Amino acid sequence: MYSFQNDYSQCCHPAILKRLASLGTQAFSGYGTDEICASAADKIRKTVGCPQAAVHFLTGGTQTNMIVIDALLRPWEAVIAADSGHIHVHETGAVEGTGHKVLTARTKDGKLTPSMIEEICRRHTDEHMVRPRMVYLSDSTELGTIYTKAELTAIHELCRRRELYLFLDGARLGAALCAETNDLAFTDLPRLCDVFYIGGTKNGAMLGEAVVIPDPSLFPDFRYQLKHRGGMLAKGFLLGVNFDVLFTDSLYMQLAAQADRMASRLREGLIRLQIPMFVDAPANQLFPVLPNSWVDELQESFTFEVWSPAGPDRTCIRLTTSWATDEAAVDALLTALQKCRETNNREWSFI
Amino acid sequence: MYSFQNDYSQCCHPAILKRLASLGTQAFSGYGTDEICASAADKIRKTVGCPQAAVHFLTGGTQTNMIVIDALLRPWEAVIAADSGHIHVHETGAVEGTGHKVLTARTKDGKLTPSMIEEICRRHTDEHMVRPRMVYLSDSTELGTIYTKAELTAIHELCRRRELYLFLDGARLGAALCAETNDLAFTDLPRLCDVFYIGGTKNGAMLGEAVVIPDPSLFPDFRYQLKHRGGMLAKGFLLGVNFDVLFTDSLYMQLAAQADRMASRLREGLIRLQIPMFVDAPANQLFPVLPNSWVDELQESFTFEVWSPAGPDRTCIRLTTSWATDEAAVDALLTALQKCRETNNREWSFI
Amino acid sequence: MYSFQNDYSQCCHPAILKRLASLGTQAFSGYGTDEICASAADKIRKTVGCPQAAVHFLTGGTQTNMIVIDALLRPWEAVIAADSGHIHVHETGAVEGTGHKVLTARTKDGKLTPSMIEEICRRHTDEHMVRPRMVYLSDSTELGTIYTKAELTAIHELCRRRELYLFLDGARLGAALCAETNDLAFTDLPRLCDVFYIGGTKNGAMLGEAVVIPDPSLFPDFRYQLKHRGGMLAKGFLLGVNFDVLFTDSLYMQLAAQADRMASRLREGLIRLQIPMFVDAPANQLFPVLPNSWVDELQESFTFEVWSPAGPDRTCIRLTTSWATDEAAVDALLTALQKCRETNNREWSFI
Amino acid sequence: MYSFQNDYSQCCHPAILKRLASLGTQAFSGYGTDEICASAADKIRKTVGCPQAAVHFLTGGTQTNMIVIDALLRPWEAVIAADSGHIHVHETGAVEGTGHKVLTARTKDGKLTPSMIEEICRRHTDEHMVRPRMVYLSDSTELGTIYTKAELTAIHELCRRRELYLFLDGARLGAALCAETNDLAFTDLPRLCDVFYIGGTKNGAMLGEAVVIPDPSLFPDFRYQLKHRGGMLAKGFLLGVNFDVLFTDSLYMQLAAQADRMASRLREGLIRLQIPMFVDAPANQLFPVLPNSWVDELQESFTFEVWSPAGPDRTCIRLTTSWATDEAAVDALLTALQKCRETNNREWSFI
Repeated sequence: MYSFQNDYSQCCHPAILKRLASLGTQAFSGYGTDEICASAADKIRKTVGCPQAAVHFLTGGTQTNMIVIDALLRPWEAVIAADSGHIHVHETGAVEGTGHKVLTARTKDGKLTPSMIEEICRRHTDEHMVRPRMVYLSDSTELGTIYTKAELTAIHELCRRRELYLFLDGARLGAALCAETNDLAFTDLPRLCDVFYIGGTKNGAMLGEAVVIPDPSLFPDFRYQLKHRGGMLAKGFLLGVNFDVLFTDSLYMQLAAQADRMASRLREGLIRLQIPMFVDAPANQLFPVLPNSWVDELQESFTFEVWSPAGPDRTCIRLTTSWATDEAAVDALLTALQKCRETNNREWSFI
Repeated sequence: MYSFQNDYSQCCHPAILKRLASLGTQAFSGYGTDEICASAADKIRKTVGCPQAAVHFLTGGTQTNMIVIDALLRPWEAVIAADSGHIHVHETGAVEGTGHKVLTARTKDGKLTPSMIEEICRRHTDEHMVRPRMVYLSDSTELGTIYTKAELTAIHELCRRRELYLFLDGARLGAALCAETNDLAFTDLPRLCDVFYIGGTKNGAMLGEAVVIPDPSLFPDFRYQLKHRGGMLAKGFLLGVNFDVLFTDSLYMQLAAQADRMASRLREGLIRLQIPMFVDAPANQLFPVLPNSWVDELQESFTFEVWSPAGPDRTCIRLTTSWATDEAAVDALLTALQKCRETNNREWSFI
Repeated sequence: MYSFQNDYSQCCHPAILKRLASLGTQAFSGYGTDEICASAADKIRKTVGCPQAAVHFLTGGTQTNMIVIDALLRPWEAVIAADSGHIHVHETGAVEGTGHKVLTARTKDGKLTPSMIEEICRRHTDEHMVRPRMVYLSDSTELGTIYTKAELTAIHELCRRRELYLFLDGARLGAALCAETNDLAFTDLPRLCDVFYIGGTKNGAMLGEAVVIPDPSLFPDFRYQLKHRGGMLAKGFLLGVNFDVLFTDSLYMQLAAQADRMASRLREGLIRLQIPMFVDAPANQLFPVLPNSWVDELQESFTFEVWSPAGPDRTCIRLTTSWATDEAAVDALLTALQKCRETNNREWSFI
Repeated sequence: MYSFQNDYSQCCHPAILKRLASLGTQAFSGYGTDEICASAADKIRKTVGCPQAAVHFLTGGTQTNMIVIDALLRPWEAVIAADSGHIHVHETGAVEGTGHKVLTARTKDGKLTPSMIEEICRRHTDEHMVRPRMVYLSDSTELGTIYTKAELTAIHELCRRRELYLFLDGARLGAALCAETNDLAFTDLPRLCDVFYIGGTKNGAMLGEAVVIPDPSLFPDFRYQLKHRGGMLAKGFLLGVNFDVLFTDSLYMQLAAQADRMASRLREGLIRLQIPMFVDAPANQLFPVLPNSWVDELQESFTFEVWSPAGPDRTCIRLTTSWATDEAAVDALLTALQKCRETNNREWSFI
């Protein structure tokens, strides 16, 4: 069984386990106040080119989103997201659970644009409606698409004008930055975002997300909020270990690049097979649309997510690659698809 | 530097690391739906003697408390705790953050009694006050004390009578169950509690707390609440690994017993040195009261928590042992105390 | 200046003031436990034909919605509403403020259908998404439309099948029940809804909304929730007075009928003038689409709500009638429109 | 039956009803944006000597407390109150319902002191505990006691030093300011408090509390929060009417003075009868301690609150006077007590 289910199915990159094993019974101070976290934070500050940034380590993405958003918004303030945004669809109302409305814009590709944001602001005119106060976007998005530097800059500028915080969910930031068509760099983010996080869980870490706050005066009490919302890990040094290893010798980018390389190999194969895509996604998630019968066949040897129906007899599936995906898996999948194509040739055609 | 700071300073027991290393790049299904979690849950069900119990794995204690309490209470309902209870003092208002009041009773030793609970119920008579609906207690408590079977049974019976849920915080359950004076067993808990959790973080796990719900119909939607409050770990199988290892060959109890043995060795030494204790604590936390000058001297070679002032020139400190504490550390501490005693003999006496 | 701004611009019907004046310095017990509230509740129970119903009096609509919805939902549960629903658009996130997501369906006329609800339920499949648990609808809706008995019954049946509570916001229930095309009766509601409220504020009361819970065992602790969310009025008997008067000799229905009659007169006039409507609304709100220049002219002598742009040079406005609207006001408005039509005849035509 | 139950048993002062009757069917703009609210706010600004203050009108005390406290605190921040404070005891956890912990100090007379506040601040040292950020006090207090100018100034100064907001609950502010021993004036409050409210409900209004924010930049979005928490009344002009009348020709102070005069008459009578008091309360609430048998007898002709047991055979009751209490009622009560005294003379004596 080959897995294209997601990018968080494996334990972690071996270098992290090795480092954990080296700790032995050494005692560390609790709750992220240890020297490993300090070292990891330093490496991240250097990587993003922002020496004064505050860096905090959390255990998961939903937790991070809910903690960051709730910390910056007042009760009556709302966050703007794409209608496919993780906070809107896949967090079981965690943001609303902290009291805030998520305002959404319809998108085709999971990406917000300045005009969508502007339109939402324009419609919210007075105190009978929530006040939009933050833009949430993910890069890469839930549909595997990415933001260009020009696009993110335009959103950034609108946010300044409209007094909106800009928060970038980087659960799959590595895959975005390593995509072939990407022109954003780690060092652009502190300038363009008020807060962002660098996802570890989906890029080789055992667990952990690193929140970066370029201007720490934005929320000096972050650690209070972290504890208040149940997000402070007793053995915070474990999170430090993950990021300290990932940000040594650019391992973080190497792992993301491997995921993207495997996605590219897969994408090219799908194109060769003339399989249509639901969306043009340059990072580590692909959304091919397949005849239902193919999906059934593939499921015998591969795991992946069935994304959504795409007509009476077709289904959109999600294929995700990770640092742990190898060429053999990709090639096996392409071979299986080739076989489906041949077998079903007469009955079905993509147009 | 010897550490008596707490019981969560070290990475984890080597058996857990070994098991993690054995996973390699094997893919597991996400969010705790994997076979390792299933196996760990089975072992726990056997250990507590409750085949029908639901078992869920969370990452930390504050998170667990807030998620469990909020899931069972309606907005206007409150939870009763000792005034030293973790949820009241040391969780930065996490329970209140989910909307519920914590009602407290003054205790000397961190333990609730039926009469304290009854008194709170009696005072809350109508809809202008919150409705008490749950009792929260920790075993061992934040002061290292433990509940006897008779005490817990009496509270259980009152809870039935008063329609209160009984929730036991077992962050340090192992240390309680292995204490010399303890007469409670794992198998008593499903009968006496509506929910309890078995703490991993403070007993050798890398991370993790196992929530046990003897009657799963009590909250069938636990996984929704887990996700809603940011407590669902993507790589849930990691938590499964921790508990699967800890509940193989009674490792959990062995580690707790080691912590308690070291605490006993320390306790006996303190008694020999005629050092008074703030409270009589039979588990893995000790609260000696020392002259301030001794505290300063000890801090040069040992880490521990300064608990509270205990008069103009004395301080209560907390010494915590863990599975990783060894006799050398205990003996070094006792020797240092002996030296303090000799040096300061003429100036100071405990009476 | 004639007002078509809304239906809550005036103090109240004189009969209510008269009754208030009759109270003198008589003392009543607080918080709605008085005999006037009891009498008003009885009259409402009789009116809706549900002797066992619980009836509670609150001060306003947003408060009522947030209190009822939050009382019935668990933290991870969500409420389904039309995208024009008051709770979604015009309550500044009050429902989200209690922790619950509002799931919306796009509608043209402000009315939910079973298929919209079904579609939302189908999309919410597991614990990574909120659990839909309630349907919120308003009758008449925010767009002045109303539900037929068949429509409400179909929604009711789906709700039973899908285990959804059905909550009807009756802020403008009177206007709905008195509409010419209406076939619902007060007595249908206890059978079809789990909770509904009868709006006083928008139908002649000084203030007040009456929540009706046909099966009181649904939430026995309603008064706790009322107090918990700041909705319990010290002088609850004032709310009782409002509803006791309104439910004496059918005054409630008389006032609503007057509002609807004035709306009908206005509607007929608009039709005569061939003015298009944004939506076909049979109750006390009308949504004509006018050239922008007409809107400017009308604003000199009439107050109304500018609803939304309806093209480059047209605007949709909302005209609301109330128990206090008289024929003179309606006729003045129609005359003014006639004048606009004549003046602007050559430049503009509705097609 | 004479009522000493509370100060909100009657409809309202006749001048308010008269003003309401004068409104006829005049239309006002909604939600407190009308000219009557503007006039009332102006009068209040003049009365408190703070021309720049923002003034908002709400319907009740619990609602006001929860809305103000939640607006100023971040999620992890807490409010300090006396253990008898209304927000702690009698609001069904409304403040916790918005996510904030209430930290309490034990008091004998319901009054906070700087040292109590300081002690709470000292104990809250880091992010594992909530951050105290506001002091809540009521004047007069829930026990009928009042703050002197020196006391309030000392608390104010500590609040500045500790960066705590000072919020004064003035549900019974009139009774405090009119007490014989009071030396605070309306004009002291804007200087000493960050926010305070002037209670209408308990001093002759039909309903309404006026929140005064001396420095409006403290929360510019107050109206958003008001709506978000369900506290914005559609017919806000009704609240305006109440305060416009109460702040014309000092009616507010006249009514409070009448309540206090009746309390004084009662207090003197109780002293003459050598009846002990639970607390020395100079405003409009008195807390005599009576033999249980007397309480039973009194309840036949008088309503009042049974406050708490005060020993095996005595009970503390609360007698509250209001603007509507007259000398006849007071004298009847004193006569009844005199009779109790005589009848029970031989069996019982106060010592």
